[in-house]
Amino acid sequence: MQQILTEALAVAAPRRAGGKVADYIPALARVSADKLGIAFAGADGVVGAGDCDEPFSIQSISKVFMLALALDRVGVNLWERVGREPSGSTFNSIVQLESEHGIPRNPLINPGAIVVTDALIGEEGSADAAIEALLTLLRAQSGDPSIAVDEEVASSESDTGARNRSLAWFMKNFGNLTNPVEIAVGAYFRQCAVAMSCRQLARAGRFLAFDGRDPETGAEIIPWHRARRINSVMMLCGHYDNSGEFAFRVGLPGKSGVGGGILAIAPGHGALAVWSPALNEYGTSAAGAAALEAVVDRTGWSVFF
Amino acid sequence: MQQILTEALAVAAPRRAGGKVADYIPALARVSADKLGIAFAGADGVVGAGDCDEPFSIQSISKVFMLALALDRVGVNLWERVGREPSGSTFNSIVQLESEHGIPRNPLINPGAIVVTDALIGEEGSADAAIEALLTLLRAQSGDPSIAVDEEVASSESDTGARNRSLAWFMKNFGNLTNPVEIAVGAYFRQCAVAMSCRQLARAGRFLAFDGRDPETGAEIIPWHRARRINSVMMLCGHYDNSGEFAFRVGLPGKSGVGGGILAIAPGHGALAVWSPALNEYGTSAAGAAALEAVVDRTGWSVFF
Amino acid sequence: MQQILTEALAVAAPRRAGGKVADYIPALARVSADKLGIAFAGADGVVGAGDCDEPFSIQSISKVFMLALALDRVGVNLWERVGREPSGSTFNSIVQLESEHGIPRNPLINPGAIVVTDALIGEEGSADAAIEALLTLLRAQSGDPSIAVDEEVASSESDTGARNRSLAWFMKNFGNLTNPVEIAVGAYFRQCAVAMSCRQLARAGRFLAFDGRDPETGAEIIPWHRARRINSVMMLCGHYDNSGEFAFRVGLPGKSGVGGGILAIAPGHGALAVWSPALNEYGTSAAGAAALEAVVDRTGWSVFF
Amino acid sequence: MQQILTEALAVAAPRRAGGKVADYIPALARVSADKLGIAFAGADGVVGAGDCDEPFSIQSISKVFMLALALDRVGVNLWERVGREPSGSTFNSIVQLESEHGIPRNPLINPGAIVVTDALIGEEGSADAAIEALLTLLRAQSGDPSIAVDEEVASSESDTGARNRSLAWFMKNFGNLTNPVEIAVGAYFRQCAVAMSCRQLARAGRFLAFDGRDPETGAEIIPWHRARRINSVMMLCGHYDNSGEFAFRVGLPGKSGVGGGILAIAPGHGALAVWSPALNEYGTSAAGAAALEAVVDRTGWSVFF
Repeated sequence: MQQILTEALAVAAPRRAGGKVADYIPALARVSADKLGIAFAGADGVVGAGDCDEPFSIQSISKVFMLALALDRVGVNLWERVGREPSGSTFNSIVQLESEHGIPRNPLINPGAIVVTDALIGEEGSADAAIEALLTLLRAQSGDPSIAVDEEVASSESDTGARNRSLAWFMKNFGNLTNPVEIAVGAYFRQCAVAMSCRQLARAGRFLAFDGRDPETGAEIIPWHRARRINSVMMLCGHYDNSGEFAFRVGLPGKSGVGGGILAIAPGHGALAVWSPALNEYGTSAAGAAALEAVVDRTGWSVFF
Repeated sequence: MQQILTEALAVAAPRRAGGKVADYIPALARVSADKLGIAFAGADGVVGAGDCDEPFSIQSISKVFMLALALDRVGVNLWERVGREPSGSTFNSIVQLESEHGIPRNPLINPGAIVVTDALIGEEGSADAAIEALLTLLRAQSGDPSIAVDEEVASSESDTGARNRSLAWFMKNFGNLTNPVEIAVGAYFRQCAVAMSCRQLARAGRFLAFDGRDPETGAEIIPWHRARRINSVMMLCGHYDNSGEFAFRVGLPGKSGVGGGILAIAPGHGALAVWSPALNEYGTSAAGAAALEAVVDRTGWSVFF
Repeated sequence: MQQILTEALAVAAPRRAGGKVADYIPALARVSADKLGIAFAGADGVVGAGDCDEPFSIQSISKVFMLALALDRVGVNLWERVGREPSGSTFNSIVQLESEHGIPRNPLINPGAIVVTDALIGEEGSADAAIEALLTLLRAQSGDPSIAVDEEVASSESDTGARNRSLAWFMKNFGNLTNPVEIAVGAYFRQCAVAMSCRQLARAGRFLAFDGRDPETGAEIIPWHRARRINSVMMLCGHYDNSGEFAFRVGLPGKSGVGGGILAIAPGHGALAVWSPALNEYGTSAAGAAALEAVVDRTGWSVFF
Repeated sequence: MQQILTEALAVAAPRRAGGKVADYIPALARVSADKLGIAFAGADGVVGAGDCDEPFSIQSISKVFMLALALDRVGVNLWERVGREPSGSTFNSIVQLESEHGIPRNPLINPGAIVVTDALIGEEGSADAAIEALLTLLRAQSGDPSIAVDEEVASSESDTGARNRSLAWFMKNFGNLTNPVEIAVGAYFRQCAVAMSCRQLARAGRFLAFDGRDPETGAEIIPWHRARRINSVMMLCGHYDNSGEFAFRVGLPGKSGVGGGILAIAPGHGALAVWSPALNEYGTSAAGAAALEAVVDRTGWSVFF
């Protein structure tokens, strides 16, 4: 596996040149476009290659873990507030939100994620408690108690968060936000600012590849049917309007973030995390997606075989 | 497997009551809402249950086979004329076609399928030859040389095909239709009118579950990478604006038709075909989807495990 | 003229039954649907009929006066921040705002009015000063120094203003809002809460019918070309998605408010103000529009003659 | 008036440089961008300047006369098949047609005009009879029996008419087209290909400025209330998504055509026709609109005074 990862990085490395590092906040803009790392967490441990130990901003990848937590706390009623269909347009478009009365299309676009966060705040009692629940999950699954929110990033996100506030107020207008807008988006900005390395992220997401269980201890993190369904949502909606392309090329459930990370789940095998900050036009890591495609080409892990 | 299929029909049967048979043409409207059949084609043969030997109108399921043929003849250039992203709105909406300059979102919505048919006509030399290519593929894979177009259905489709003609002229306006509109839609109406039973359909689609090969003879029908990619398109786009729900519940690549049929692919295991004419609000067979969900619950074949 | 107004009210009175009083805030909901008043301010004075001396919430009619003030202070550069085309969809739709990069279609839909208010705040130095400028204009033109903001209404507007806040944040996202969102929408909520009677409103708007001048004193309130252009914007955009109908039936530049008031301008003749709280499905006073139509039928003041 | 027209052409002439001649059909593409003519038809005759006697393709200006004829034959029921609100988007967009179930927004956008033509065909009995009715009206009002369809233009329009056919099939799908698509669009292409000079056009449209009557004979062409309402539709919808700008600058009801002509109505004064083939980005004659603005500046005929 180590060799596969190394080869995959070699194949993907030239793709960094075609992408563009997110520059809407300083903390992201100053990350080098040369960074490239990958890690795989299987049933018996983690292997990595390249810049796999360097923390980066997980951004929208946090939505997957928040969804797992909210489903656990709220149950199926969560689906009354957010759909599970692909969005079919730019990643935080407000248009469909209007025609569908404030119900976001899925939990992996920004308005859907804000609803999920709002729901978890409701269950946990406060925004701080919701973020603490996220960190507890990430720390436990990654085995690293030092994982934390990068508060500089969170603060910058808040400073540039006009569009997300607009989306939140829009849902508030339709009655689909229970907490004050600033509370909900404040927690959302903080969850996006969690910093993790590829190794940590792959290990943290591994339970999704093993029916919701930690394969080393056998402990159930979430029920098997939830894991399966989170994977289906990631497959159909994990990359905004680039989800079809990712499914076509990589063939694994995945979630990308504008920090350049991607988490991909190979059911029955394990979780892959890749990081390369230069993004394609849809906000997905260009070299990251190429590296995952290379891994799948060598392992045959596409779910479509 | 026989028992699983029988159980699945029993679980699904009550769901017929909640659906509605397509009534836009007489030949579909007069089919009994009680019909329910299923078949599975694995590596070593076909088993079926219920009304699995009764032919029905495969309708949009034909799009999958036409896509396989067009990709075979045209190659990857086909993707310059049609995308592979979910459409995110009602199944033959013209809206995105406008904003995306006549390039349909994917080959499984009506305008995308018309482009695929137009491309195949171009390669085969005539509309008749394109339909003949489809029938040749279906007859060979199903092992039944009697499979044919129901010309009464084709004629009715043509009589009620104003919207599809509008879509075709719209693409013609953008230069994305090479044949005359009536030639292209005429072939499209005929492909939708092919009649097949569940047994025939499951066997015809089986090569998609085995890397593009016939598992009994080992013959390559299409290259492995094409099979994998057709499966990914089915997974993300096979049920119009209900694709997320199907992935969430069934977890298999699939394609539904308004005749009440669904073809689903279980990679490595085989193909499932189900038929029940009463449709849900999105045009997918209500009991059919429930039967597939029941099969997956019993076999664990969801690609998300 | 007195008789024409009385007749117009008689013709329009039955139309109250078909409308619905705005109920999104208590202060509007408790107004009697039976109210009906009209006033005409010509070159030599004001005449009224019905409930023409009872103050009501002018709501969106304030947008016309704010536009006059902002054009006076900012000049033609204001048109770089807001268009002057009809919106063609529901009255505060966010859809076009997205496709047109945060530039509202015209100053008489909510997002356009918020931009105008934001611009006036910038020129006057504070939200309080902007509202003071509005009151100064209204008091001077109506001849009544007691005109004021109904602070209960303003407060209720703020409590229910999620959609307007969403619109404001959306424009903020595109850089088309210079003040903090709460400052801009706070002023907007207050301008909508100004209370005036038909008599006051007709007299306040009269300068728009006389090339921007007060016909009694001859003083220029705004230049003639501005008056003409404000009238054209009222004609094309004054009633959201009901503007065509109003032009078709009444044939005068006008602006409606959800408080049930309408201000209409008969160029060269004078200004009409009508009030009846029951609204049609587009948010325009049902009996109010009918009364104006009756006046025009009797006077021949339609601009289309 | 002669001098005003001459001055207006002088003011407008430099604006030809900023426009672009329509080139989608050869017969339009080969017209010189230098052409510039204007004519005014008042109560007692016609005056012209520049290229005011050279025939050009009236294109969409024909929609105004067809609307007058269809309203005359069908009556108010015509408004059940077509609206009278501004369209608010590009001139023959199909999007709103979808959301509004095949009812075009107004009779001056392409789908609305096709519905009007379809209705007139129904009343007259054939497409030929509908076109004959149009020519009869135009010949009688212009006083020139030689006015005719340029069949080369009509044929070219048909060859490039994919988008209009798409619109027509779309309305057919919603049941809002009674004749076969080719019959309706065939007549539509012919009406657009009528050739007239500015002098002829101004005189032909003059009745709209005089309450529906010929001011020289006193004969009623259409009832006064119809003339008023056609003017209102021209004011709000006559220039697609540039209608607000035209109202803002010119302040008269008008209708433009891609042949470079504009017909404008000055109620109580007369009709103006201008021609200059170079179009602005919205398909309105650039110098033509400027010339009309110059006339209005000199005459004070804006309806907003």
